[in-house]
Amino acid sequence: ELKTLVDDLHPSDIAFILESLPKDERQTVWHLVSAKHDADVLLEVDDWVRESLIETMDHQDLVAATGNMDADELADLAPDLPPDVVAEVQKGLTEEERARLIEAMGYPEDSVGAIMDFDMVRVREDVTLEVVLRYLRRLNELPDHTDQIFVVDREDKLLGVLSLSRLLLSQLETEVRAVMDTDILTLNPLDSDADAAGAFERYDLVSAPVIDDHGRLIGRVTIAEVVDVIREDSEEQALSRAGMQEEDIFAPVRSALRNRAPWLLLNLCTAGIASLVASHFEDTVSHIVILAFLMSIVAGIGGNSGNQTMTLIIRALAVGRVTTRNVWQLIKREMLVTLLVGLCGSAAAAVFAWVLSGSPSIALVMMAAMVLNMLVGASVGVIVPMVRSRFGKDPAIGSSVLLTFATDSLGFFIFLGLATLFLI
Amino acid sequence: ELKTLVDDLHPSDIAFILESLPKDERQTVWHLVSAKHDADVLLEVDDWVRESLIETMDHQDLVAATGNMDADELADLAPDLPPDVVAEVQKGLTEEERARLIEAMGYPEDSVGAIMDFDMVRVREDVTLEVVLRYLRRLNELPDHTDQIFVVDREDKLLGVLSLSRLLLSQLETEVRAVMDTDILTLNPLDSDADAAGAFERYDLVSAPVIDDHGRLIGRVTIAEVVDVIREDSEEQALSRAGMQEEDIFAPVRSALRNRAPWLLLNLCTAGIASLVASHFEDTVSHIVILAFLMSIVAGIGGNSGNQTMTLIIRALAVGRVTTRNVWQLIKREMLVTLLVGLCGSAAAAVFAWVLSGSPSIALVMMAAMVLNMLVGASVGVIVPMVRSRFGKDPAIGSSVLLTFATDSLGFFIFLGLATLFLI
Ligand SMILES: [Mg+2]
Ligand SMILES: [Mg+2]
Ligand SMILES: [Mg+2]
Ligand SMILES: [Mg+2]
Ligand SMILES: [Mg+2]
Ligand SMILES: [Mg+2]
Ligand SMILES: [Mg+2]
Ligand SMILES: [Mg+2]
Ligand SMILES: [Mg+2]
Ligand SMILES: [Mg+2]
Ligand SMILES: [Mg+2]
Ligand SMILES: [Mg+2]
Ligand SMILES: [Mg+2]
Repeated sequence: ELKTLVDDLHPSDIAFILESLPKDERQTVWHLVSAKHDADVLLEVDDWVRESLIETMDHQDLVAATGNMDADELADLAPDLPPDVVAEVQKGLTEEERARLIEAMGYPEDSVGAIMDFDMVRVREDVTLEVVLRYLRRLNELPDHTDQIFVVDREDKLLGVLSLSRLLLSQLETEVRAVMDTDILTLNPLDSDADAAGAFERYDLVSAPVIDDHGRLIGRVTIAEVVDVIREDSEEQALSRAGMQEEDIFAPVRSALRNRAPWLLLNLCTAGIASLVASHFEDTVSHIVILAFLMSIVAGIGGNSGNQTMTLIIRALAVGRVTTRNVWQLIKREMLVTLLVGLCGSAAAAVFAWVLSGSPSIALVMMAAMVLNMLVGASVGVIVPMVRSRFGKDPAIGSSVLLTFATDSLGFFIFLGLATLFLI
Repeated sequence: ELKTLVDDLHPSDIAFILESLPKDERQTVWHLVSAKHDADVLLEVDDWVRESLIETMDHQDLVAATGNMDADELADLAPDLPPDVVAEVQKGLTEEERARLIEAMGYPEDSVGAIMDFDMVRVREDVTLEVVLRYLRRLNELPDHTDQIFVVDREDKLLGVLSLSRLLLSQLETEVRAVMDTDILTLNPLDSDADAAGAFERYDLVSAPVIDDHGRLIGRVTIAEVVDVIREDSEEQALSRAGMQEEDIFAPVRSALRNRAPWLLLNLCTAGIASLVASHFEDTVSHIVILAFLMSIVAGIGGNSGNQTMTLIIRALAVGRVTTRNVWQLIKREMLVTLLVGLCGSAAAAVFAWVLSGSPSIALVMMAAMVLNMLVGASVGVIVPMVRSRFGKDPAIGSSVLLTFATDSLGFFIFLGLATLFLI
């Protein structure tokens, strides 16, 4: 009866459950899922779960599950499938589908080509809506997320789109060309999927045509894929800021180690360098031991403040809101804000230092070092993401290591340096 | 001519440009936007920009811009509008629209009620599709994102939905009840918008009906609003992890200070407490000054490692993947992974400490302290978000302060404590 229970679920819910289970239980539940859901579940689960599901299926199961997939779906799965399965399944495809499969497999990850499908309804511009309606009624079903059909000429060049609501509301004798929309957003298969997602978001689209360099209609992107792109990108960014890649919460310990260790070793290096910098002031610290306990405050607050600036800048870069025209104003504003926050914060820190050390000069040195180090944090927080994005790299990745490195090393250097100059 | 140039843009593009400009230039461009776009632009811009746009408009402009808005749109804007404008505009509404306005204004932020609209096409179940088509053709247009129309009874109870593709593909003489879908996802106006977004994502929806406790259809949520919810939530989370709320990149310096200072002061307090903890070991540090430079490594790596664990856990919580059944396995796994990464990392750190200090016992103390502190980080990284989420709070907010606090204070305590025990 457990089996019927599982089978009554929506494939997406089955996928979610599988993603939440440790590997052993996942395999057990997967065996309960009947073959009719296999294809949908495999397409819906996250990459790291998909591998573990495919592992447990034999050649026969896999061919059965993938045999009826669309070319774009098969292309998504192909990298995870055993080559002999792909070879067998592609034999069953028509010439056209095989061409699409090869095309879809060729587009790079994170491109529009990788998220487009080939499920389009095409009509000519010189027929009436009545003809279009009759044509549609002959189809068994419309592709998912069909909010518009595509108007093409004999060479498959995209001439316009006809929204279903226009089709439903206009007079039957109207010609397609009279009611089609020609002012349309088109995508190129090599556009980035994030840019396409931005367009969907801004113009509230449900689907958009993909055309090649000759204006020929080759595919379609739907909002369902776009929502996945938006969600995955935001998760990727959150993980990459912590120095990780996507990780199964129940992945083998081995792969978790491989995922996390590099980042920690990198941080260990930067922390080591910062402490080498500080150790040059061993004499100063041995004279005034209290400096040892204050220096980590200077370094830490510089990092926190720089992190605020960096978060704002990365976000502004991500939505394209930083331009050559406004960049200087942005930088000046960040510096001013940081200076003012720094003056308040360092006054509080100075009082603390005074109470702890009983020395007003230590308090003054602390105050000066903290403001300066916060300005270091703001500069790194602005410059590093901008430079990375200028060179076409993701501004989020690695920026926080550099920030911590700068605010730790320079924080120690400024604070202990000022102390050496003025207190010894 | 600049004016025509601006007017040719899509309102969403105008909104984007306004969001990217410093306040003065923003007002200048806003004056170039002709009145016909005012409503759409006001609805599209981010909250912080909207306020600055409304400021520059007089009573007349505002009434003109908002006079033709739908009840749900007006409800979105109402908190930012001068009360006399709202009072005047609502006079022009029909009884029904006024009731909707009051209803829409009453739903809490982040609820389904706040993102739903009232633009629905309703039909009865006992009419034929031909009648439905004739009815639709009498409408001027379908509401945006109409992928389905709603089948209701005389009391407005929702009986099912009729997708446009069913409507287009079925025979005209079929009755609605024969082709409507009765297995539908419905939302309640008090559901959280994030949960609704999750359902849209999982079931690839374009629109979903909202019903009250008596099953009556009261509204509709569309994917366009859901995409905004997903994007805003992910931005909010990124900002809140850095201790900020949404901030205009060109907001007045004053409001930036108010936004950022509390977080930095909070971090200052925790850093101060950590240094107080460390200062109890002043004797130890004055004997072995090198400990002062190593202790910040122990604290920092504990924080980095804990941050990885915390990021994973927050994400797993966000997608509902942590359950009472798997929580122990998750915790055990995180501890094991951290222990293993810690053993590798601390071995490297121990070598560094040995070279810097020339003392193998300092190296051993460093190694032990680092592994222990990483386990502290993992525990806090697991427990704090889980406890927060158990009490219905956002697991992301504040977790990182507590993490840094724990790994700094306990890191200093463990390292200097072990050093005092074994090295002095
Ligand atoms: Mg199975
Ligand atoms: Mg998924
Ligand atoms: Mg991607
Ligand atoms: Mg694909
Ligand atoms: Mg498809
Ligand atoms: Mg939008
Ligand atoms: Mg204007
Ligand atoms: Mg917007
Ligand atoms: Mg929200
Ligand atoms: Mg609303
Ligand atoms: Mg509306
Ligand atoms: Mg989906
Ligand atoms: Mg909106």
